[in-house]
Formats: sequence, structure tokens, C-alpha cells
Amino acid sequence: MVISIQLSERQERIIDIVKCNQPITSENIAKKLKLTRSTIRPDLAILTMSGILDARPKVGYFYTGKTTLSFISEKIREIKVADRKSVPIVVDEESSIYDAIVTMFLEDVGTIYVTSGGYLSGVVSRKDFLKNAIGGLDLYKTPVGVIMTRMPNIVVTTLGETVLEAANKLIDHEIDSLPVVEEVSIKEGEKAYKVIGRITKTTITRLFVDLGNNE
Amino acid sequence: MVISIQLSERQERIIDIVKCNQPITSENIAKKLKLTRSTIRPDLAILTMSGILDARPKVGYFYTGKTTLSFISEKIREIKVADRKSVPIVVDEESSIYDAIVTMFLEDVGTIYVTSGGYLSGVVSRKDFLKNAIGGLDLYKTPVGVIMTRMPNIVVTTLGETVLEAANKLIDHEIDSLPVVEEVSIKEGEKAYKVIGRITKTTITRLFVDLGNNE
Repeated sequence: MVISIQLSERQERIIDIVKCNQPITSENIAKKLKLTRSTIRPDLAILTMSGILDARPKVGYFYTGKTTLSFISEKIREIKVADRKSVPIVVDEESSIYDAIVTMFLEDVGTIYVTSGGYLSGVVSRKDFLKNAIGGLDLYKTPVGVIMTRMPNIVVTTLGETVLEAANKLIDHEIDSLPVVEEVSIKEGEKAYKVIGRITKTTITRLFVDLGNNE
Repeated sequence: MVISIQLSERQERIIDIVKCNQPITSENIAKKLKLTRSTIRPDLAILTMSGILDARPKVGYFYTGKTTLSFISEKIREIKVADRKSVPIVVDEESSIYDAIVTMFLEDVGTIYVTSGGYLSGVVSRKDFLKNAIGGLDLYKTPVGVIMTRMPNIVVTTLGETVLEAANKLIDHEIDSLPVVEEVSIKEGEKAYKVIGRITKTTITRLFVDLGNNE
């Protein structure tokens, strides 16, 4: 178990002393504070256990720079895509743009995934639809395959990745949604993706709310 | 400063002993561990400082149930809308739907805010545009005011709210974007909102990435 501790003023002063004088022995830290070594022993124990200070025998104490933020970061890095993914909304590449838009409204999602023969072939978002709805394509006759972003230009995630890695991809590629895929061999040398989930900015927002509400 | 500590096996055992026997004195904890009181004194100090145990004079130690998750939650609750808001994208209520869509594409946002006389009067999203683009309205002649969600049915946030409160609103109301507003008196008894920022699921995703990447 990991716990958190609010440092005392004296402990904060010890950190500052070590920062400026490292390596420094406990005798010298005590001298600077005009205290005895045994008085500050519990403080040094706490600061060493927390990893904020490092002690080397016969040399003294070092400041490691570890902070509470790195602790939050560690907790966040434990959460996997497999733990938080939701169900993917998928249409076939031959579906009309109109049918794909209807699916998007019915399922209330911002992005849908497109498959061909059961494997991921594209991704299409509200933005793509809007561009083409005002463009003048015949929405009833044109297949969604015509307007989608096509493989291999699709950013994906997998069950084993962390939600943080997936969130980094959403931000870096300026997209709203990532298909969660499983790679399969279809014939010798050829790979394809089965779509098994989705991670979106809504997933991340809901996770943030759960962390903040302590759930 | 708050730091985090990985508990030792003995400290974890002390927590279990207190959980099952509370209130319990340090003498009795030491007895159960077949150790001296002075050996476990630093352990009790750490567990009390962290808030995981509570000590009442002449009564003994209690288990409080505080965990690391409540610590992450505390950190998240410190972040304010004012710290993370971005610039709002705004059009006037008299603008055509077409011009509003162009603004949305140019600024690459999913939701824009609509004002009348400089004050918030509505909100319009890609979803609203898409519904009407395939509906058959004349996009060049119809003002955006016709299709927007109108005040007072708009969920807003303010500079002083926490990002967590804003994220809760995004999830509860199933929306992608919240205008950050400032309430002003326009004439006696009448209030209106000036739009001064936006908080979106992208804001939350970026914050999550920053927390996870320890920034």
C-alpha cells in the first residue's frame, strides 16, 4: 500500500538543506538546524522512505527530485485500455453515407469505424460527414468508403496499452476517438485488425471524473 | 508539500491489527507483534501523519479509512476552470448557418457559442449542423439562431468552479463543451452572461495527459 503524508515545516527545511548541500551527513543537517541527530532521525526516515531523499552509507543524503505528481502519474499509468474501453460502433464500407449518419445519431457517437470483410478499413467522424453533407455528394447513393479516412492512416490502440498512451494519441493526432484493435493474420504475411472496442475523449473525461470523485 | 510512501510489511500489519481491534493502544499493538513499543513508534508516527490512523489520548489508535485514491482526488479538486480554460469561439446569432459551419472548420472546434448583443444566447454543435445540413434548410440564408440550443437551456461553468465540477457537467448532460461565463447585470433585475472561455472534453483529456506525464 502507498500512503500520502503532509510534510512538517522541519521536514521541508531538511529537504531545502539537502538540496543546497548534497551530499550531506545527518550530523551536518542536525547542526544546521541546531538540533540533535536523534531528533531528526524520524524526519530522515520519512523522507528516505518516500524516495524524496536518498541516503548513501558514509557519503550522506541526496535529493532525488521525486514529487507527489510522479505518484499521481504512477497511478494513472496503471489503468489499461482493457479496463475502460467501450463498445465500438461499426458499419460496413458499402453502407451509404446516409445510413452511416443515421447509425451515428442512433448510437449517439461522434466517430464510427468502417470495416470491409469484418476487418478495419476506415474511420469516419461528424466532421467528415458535415464536410460532405454541405458538399453536394448524393448521401443516399455514395458509400461511406468514399469519404472515410482509410487504412493505414488510422491511429489505433490495443487492450494492453495504458489509457494514458491512448490519451496521448488522441491529443497528438487531434482526433476524438481511437478504435481498440486486435491484430490477426488473414493469410501468409498479411495482417488485419479486428475492432474490439473504442477509447474516446468521453472515456477519458469519465475516467477523470471517477478519479476526482474517488471511485 | 505532500509526499507518498510505500508502506513496509510491518506497517501494513499494524493497519490490519488496528482495523480489527480498534481502539487499541500502542502497547497492545506492540504485544501482538511481539515487538517493543519503541520499535514501532516510527511506524505509528508515519501512519498517523498520513491520516490513515488516528490517535486519541488515553483511548488508542483508530483506522480512518483514508486511502491513496482520496489523495489523487484531493489533487484533482485543486484544479480550477480558470487554470485550464481555452479561448471561446463565438458567432453572432444573425450569422448564417453556413458562416457558422465555416467558423467551426477554420477554428477546428466541435461546438461554438452564439451571442446576441454580446451576451450568450445559444450553443451549436457539429451534431446540430449535421442534422440540419441533411435536413434541407437553406444554409446560406437561415441564421444560426434558428437551429441553436437556446438560453436558459445551456449548461455553463465559471472561473471559480473546479475542472472536476465542469467535467461532471459534461458527463451528466452528455455534452462536449461548456462555455465559461461571467454573470453581469445589464439593467435592473436582468442578468446576462459574457462568454470568457471554454472547457471541453479535449481540455479534460489534455489535463489527464499532463497529470499522467507528470507535467
